[in-house]
Amino acid sequence: MNRRRFLKRGVAALGATVAAGSAHAQAPAPDDPSKVLGGPKRPYGERSRFERAARGVPQPATKTDEWGPSVTPLGESMGIITPSSLHFEVHRGGVADIDPKKHRLLIHGMVDRPVILTVDDVKRLPSVSRIYFIECAGNTLTEWEGPDAPTVDWTHGLTSCSEWAGVPLALLLREVGVRKGASWIVAEGADATGNERSIPLAKAMTDILVAYGQNGEAIRPENGYPLRLIVPGWEGNVSVKWLRRLTVTDRPYMSRIESVDHTSLMPDGKARRFMFVMEAKSVITFPSGGQRVSGPGFYEITGLAWSGRGRIRRVEVSTDAGKTWRDATLQQPVLPFAHSRFGLPWRWDGREAVLQSRCTDETGYVQPTLRELVKVRGVNSKFHLNAIQSWKVDADGRVKNVHV
Amino acid sequence: MNRRRFLKRGVAALGATVAAGSAHAQAPAPDDPSKVLGGPKRPYGERSRFERAARGVPQPATKTDEWGPSVTPLGESMGIITPSSLHFEVHRGGVADIDPKKHRLLIHGMVDRPVILTVDDVKRLPSVSRIYFIECAGNTLTEWEGPDAPTVDWTHGLTSCSEWAGVPLALLLREVGVRKGASWIVAEGADATGNERSIPLAKAMTDILVAYGQNGEAIRPENGYPLRLIVPGWEGNVSVKWLRRLTVTDRPYMSRIESVDHTSLMPDGKARRFMFVMEAKSVITFPSGGQRVSGPGFYEITGLAWSGRGRIRRVEVSTDAGKTWRDATLQQPVLPFAHSRFGLPWRWDGREAVLQSRCTDETGYVQPTLRELVKVRGVNSKFHLNAIQSWKVDADGRVKNVHV
Repeated sequence: MNRRRFLKRGVAALGATVAAGSAHAQAPAPDDPSKVLGGPKRPYGERSRFERAARGVPQPATKTDEWGPSVTPLGESMGIITPSSLHFEVHRGGVADIDPKKHRLLIHGMVDRPVILTVDDVKRLPSVSRIYFIECAGNTLTEWEGPDAPTVDWTHGLTSCSEWAGVPLALLLREVGVRKGASWIVAEGADATGNERSIPLAKAMTDILVAYGQNGEAIRPENGYPLRLIVPGWEGNVSVKWLRRLTVTDRPYMSRIESVDHTSLMPDGKARRFMFVMEAKSVITFPSGGQRVSGPGFYEITGLAWSGRGRIRRVEVSTDAGKTWRDATLQQPVLPFAHSRFGLPWRWDGREAVLQSRCTDETGYVQPTLRELVKVRGVNSKFHLNAIQSWKVDADGRVKNVHV
Repeated sequence: MNRRRFLKRGVAALGATVAAGSAHAQAPAPDDPSKVLGGPKRPYGERSRFERAARGVPQPATKTDEWGPSVTPLGESMGIITPSSLHFEVHRGGVADIDPKKHRLLIHGMVDRPVILTVDDVKRLPSVSRIYFIECAGNTLTEWEGPDAPTVDWTHGLTSCSEWAGVPLALLLREVGVRKGASWIVAEGADATGNERSIPLAKAMTDILVAYGQNGEAIRPENGYPLRLIVPGWEGNVSVKWLRRLTVTDRPYMSRIESVDHTSLMPDGKARRFMFVMEAKSVITFPSGGQRVSGPGFYEITGLAWSGRGRIRRVEVSTDAGKTWRDATLQQPVLPFAHSRFGLPWRWDGREAVLQSRCTDETGYVQPTLRELVKVRGVNSKFHLNAIQSWKVDADGRVKNVHV
């Protein structure tokens, strides 16, 4: 490959970029910042006034401002960490306003020593921190029957990745003494809809966290402040936010959210429940729907891959709608239950191209095509669509969502 | 160890915590948030109104608001990622106000094809993202002659850790074609003091990044928006912020900051220059100076370790001023040139204790005592103090900075 082409394009684009420069300006920044005294230090920093990345909020609102999703702008994502300010949200009763001094976590049910804990109590316990993705079970649900959402933010923006800090739930359960015969826990949130999810005890004893930290500071209000569950690799809704109660039981509760909602209707007319694991999935974030490739030349195709069963082992990229595939480079570190960033240099010749990514996780599971997925699941499954996504680059460089 | 004691303490502390609850309140939060509709979704989130973590800014300002440091509140740190809003700052001319559409990076000097790049040009190139610490060479400089700073924020708060995204400098240098005989590069910032540092070409060809991303979004203004160098493991000042020029040369420039400043006066009266590498260092963040341990019982001693030579291999903790040591647990993942979080459960018996941590990196280098360091470096070295830090827990639970 002639790598020098990267920069030839760069210099050629210079004039156009300068011309577009004034569009952003509020009070203009100095032409030469080295001639001007800069701003003061600040106790809590903010982003540049020239930055505009934002979560997508449905407009007009699907129901109310307190119901439904906002999506992470994956089209502008870098690396594997999602800024807390841009982590996706899904609420059904708005963002709970919680004073951490008043908040309590009750652990009771089939236990020997029920307990009520303050947030400070939880923070004093031995802690762990891990980089984990959270993906909503409904991520990509627009795409079952044909290309629908225009951008990667709206097809795949219900997944984000943070460093979560907290206490292993297994430690708490050992402290309270789980009784013989117990096999499930039920987690309840303190929000207005009291999100309630049943979780097998075996998972609770493995790797679930009762978390209070996100990317080095307190969890953000929309992500469950001051306490939430983090259930690695499972559908996001199980990682109950604003956590206020854990009940140890011998059966699932069949709460509304896990019996009426969050089930998948299969082709035989039966509904699958408790489809906890988010299977391996990947998506190209550049070039992706709504973006534009500015003329023939070298680019880096980049995107994210993740698996609810552990580490991503491989990501392949096709530029010819799946006829041929090349191995992409995985950014280090590749962590279990975390977003992994992949990249592949690409020379665009200016002709139509269909870009796809396909990941394989450490269990050997390969991300399916939509056709393969629909064969098993039908098109009324709603949740857990992890099929290969296709982006078509038109001859004018515009990128759009297509099914092939 | 009787683990159950963790929770006995927790329940006992409940009354006291409730009593203190009203201190924080502005408009009070609802007593039961599940009875109240929550707040709306937002395009760009903010932290809870009850959170107060802040960078320490010298009060009264050492010189002006535009000069000197603000420190990361390590005493409240969790995990390994520092929130971008709390990443330490050191400026000598304030925070440059830069319009990214106007900003340019010039690469010239001993090269075949000098080039001027826009920020968009840089972003189009093949990218990498890495979790790296940045530590100011002056971190801990108060501690050469006796315990001075009261808290870990002020002894060690000039180190932070982020996920940085950008382009390998080696790729850019290959694109412009470095000429035979070149052996250094000089990096220049666009701020009012034009920070200028010389860096050996060998390091530039190894792992340096020209970065535009920090923790998943654009680098924050105080950390070099829109472009900065990231020089893994080397003193922070070399990771030139607001980067606008790279000059390939055959010698260092001996700029003010690397000849008059950022040198260490040795006992023989000579000054050491270009002490680039930040040697292995660790510090306990809880319990640390200014904090209080609330009565005998179980706690987790936790802190951070890092090395400018790669990965941390081991952290030991002493609770008896270095007479005996126990291995702490290292949080996974342990990444090269990144903060690593360590922890060790500890039963405090209520008597005076002196807590220390000591790390070993993958080269086998062991963090020295202050006595060992001073023997070689004297007490006029100013920069690069990486000695073992001691925190004394008094019988009343108060923790203070001591030298032993």
